[in-house]
Amino acid sequence: MGRFDGLPIREELKSFEPYGAPQLDVPVLLNVNENPYPASEATVADIAAAVTEAARGMNRYPDREFIGLRADLAAYLARESGAQLEPEQLWAANGSNEVMLHILQAFGGPGRTALSFAPTYSMYPEYARDTNTAWVAGRRAEDFTLDKSKALAAISRHRPSVVLLASPNNPTGTALPIDVTEAIVAQAGAQGAVVVVDEAYAEFRRTGTPSAVSLLPSYPNLAVARTMSKAFAMAGGRVGYLAASKQFVDALRIVRLPYHLSAVTQAVARAALQHSDELLGRVEQLRVERDETVDWLRSLGLRAVDSDANFVLFGTFADRHAVWQALLDDGVLIRETGPDGWLRVSIGTGDEMAAFRASLERVLKTDTGRLT
Amino acid sequence: MGRFDGLPIREELKSFEPYGAPQLDVPVLLNVNENPYPASEATVADIAAAVTEAARGMNRYPDREFIGLRADLAAYLARESGAQLEPEQLWAANGSNEVMLHILQAFGGPGRTALSFAPTYSMYPEYARDTNTAWVAGRRAEDFTLDKSKALAAISRHRPSVVLLASPNNPTGTALPIDVTEAIVAQAGAQGAVVVVDEAYAEFRRTGTPSAVSLLPSYPNLAVARTMSKAFAMAGGRVGYLAASKQFVDALRIVRLPYHLSAVTQAVARAALQHSDELLGRVEQLRVERDETVDWLRSLGLRAVDSDANFVLFGTFADRHAVWQALLDDGVLIRETGPDGWLRVSIGTGDEMAAFRASLERVLKTDTGRLT
Repeated sequence: MGRFDGLPIREELKSFEPYGAPQLDVPVLLNVNENPYPASEATVADIAAAVTEAARGMNRYPDREFIGLRADLAAYLARESGAQLEPEQLWAANGSNEVMLHILQAFGGPGRTALSFAPTYSMYPEYARDTNTAWVAGRRAEDFTLDKSKALAAISRHRPSVVLLASPNNPTGTALPIDVTEAIVAQAGAQGAVVVVDEAYAEFRRTGTPSAVSLLPSYPNLAVARTMSKAFAMAGGRVGYLAASKQFVDALRIVRLPYHLSAVTQAVARAALQHSDELLGRVEQLRVERDETVDWLRSLGLRAVDSDANFVLFGTFADRHAVWQALLDDGVLIRETGPDGWLRVSIGTGDEMAAFRASLERVLKTDTGRLT
Repeated sequence: MGRFDGLPIREELKSFEPYGAPQLDVPVLLNVNENPYPASEATVADIAAAVTEAARGMNRYPDREFIGLRADLAAYLARESGAQLEPEQLWAANGSNEVMLHILQAFGGPGRTALSFAPTYSMYPEYARDTNTAWVAGRRAEDFTLDKSKALAAISRHRPSVVLLASPNNPTGTALPIDVTEAIVAQAGAQGAVVVVDEAYAEFRRTGTPSAVSLLPSYPNLAVARTMSKAFAMAGGRVGYLAASKQFVDALRIVRLPYHLSAVTQAVARAALQHSDELLGRVEQLRVERDETVDWLRSLGLRAVDSDANFVLFGTFADRHAVWQALLDDGVLIRETGPDGWLRVSIGTGDEMAAFRASLERVLKTDTGRLT
């Protein structure tokens, strides 16, 4: 009978393994774009106090509309990106992947198509699969930028109901110029499609790189997704969110499971947002470390993609799996992802990056490290 | 353009409002089957300590497989229902509604049917809708029990891939006899279908009422869903779970979003499970209060359904909405749900039930309270 032993699992799922990078116990973890800096004890104490208060009333259901958290997120985006948003324009869920699920449940589904441009975040086709939405991937250019006219042509041709744009893109780190984003959002709107700009890594963008939140006032078919996992160093807290028009958010409210955000999650997120200065202070450090990593990789003769995120895609190796394994043998876990020949390293602490550099230098002197 | 203003929301969603009972600020809340007893300060302190520890490492992603929590849940079910289960047979998510979503994503979907027997939990058709699964509701008998041969005939006729059985049933409080459950599970298995027995209220069952967990060793197509929202007084914590065969759980692992359970949620649930004696101690009180409520309602000449849950369905009123409103005017919020003429009251504290009785007695003396 095989692995599912007569159970009526859907045919298209049978061959899949559960998604996720290997969770290995290794000294230097640079594989899933986590923020290496834990919260301070002062922030931890405030989180604990907020949870204590929430736990006292935890026998009751949480606020289904999490109005307090939505107001706090609107205030944060006002400070971070100058966006003037009402709380009703914000939405949150257990990780930005649940936000994306809500979007595809509301606007995708059977008979509909989601479109993105590869290489891009490897979860997107899974969201499509989980919601029975057809998945089409256009191509980015050789340098991983997105050609405006080709993107518009793909949207004309495939008639998606949902366009997913990651900016900065994962795993390449590439941000979209605002004129490309706006042209896509405008054309998608004319075709009756929504556009999600996935800005999970937006806080790490270089000076001068825009955020798509500036386009929100003009386009009711646009959503900008963010997360507290990365810049806020809360990957373990599972809080993703988006900003969009009220009618966009209202559509998500219909498909969300009631009470999807626990009282504890709401309390943790709100307490962390009170400490955004501290948490985001580390972002500046990581941006410097990122730029230095790009420079260092290039100084060795490697290719390294310009990055607006907290990771760098580099290569290209004749045998990237062997390089990945050689680094792992040194206790440095990075990610084997992206087009063939490339590897992705998350930006860690200074010590972690020193360990990465030492290991990679060693490997590059061996046959394992040969470039293409 | 209307409410969604040109956005491509799915046609079948347009007419819906977001699901959920009214969240009103009323002194006596007996509408959503919450446990009225908050956790003790000792339990709250342990939860806070666990969250403090989790918050220190919250910059990292949580354990995607939540092995510690699954082992704790297996140990709890061993104590509560004598089940001998391995951690790999447990699954958990943000509320049992997310558990149900995972089940329908794996085993339902386009071209497939989910079957239950009405009146039953009003979220079931929403889970089906959210996963594009066809929804068929057979009927329970006049006394809300389930006739075995009619249930088996419905399964033969509709060929569902998923059968949903609530026991105790919501909103009626009716538990299924184990022979009915077993006959359904056996026939469903022979037809290649899975059966989910939703035991959200199982801990409130009367002495001698069985749990379907006893059937797990014999039927790989059976899942028994539970929740920490009710007996554990953690509605605000959003932890639902199920026990099933390993292959059943493996199918859910494919459709779950990665890292769906936050480090904080895992920590809160595990801390609460350490205090299950205290938290479940209140269950006995609520069962006594429930049985007394049934007796009291009947002593007034009302109909009240035998209940194995923490709520009672009673009636029948010529104008149930007027009765619901009259109680609300007295500061007592109950639920207008179930077949026409019936109302559902959750079991609260002694004081809350006294307020309910006083209000209902008053209403019954007026024309508003007339029975059918």
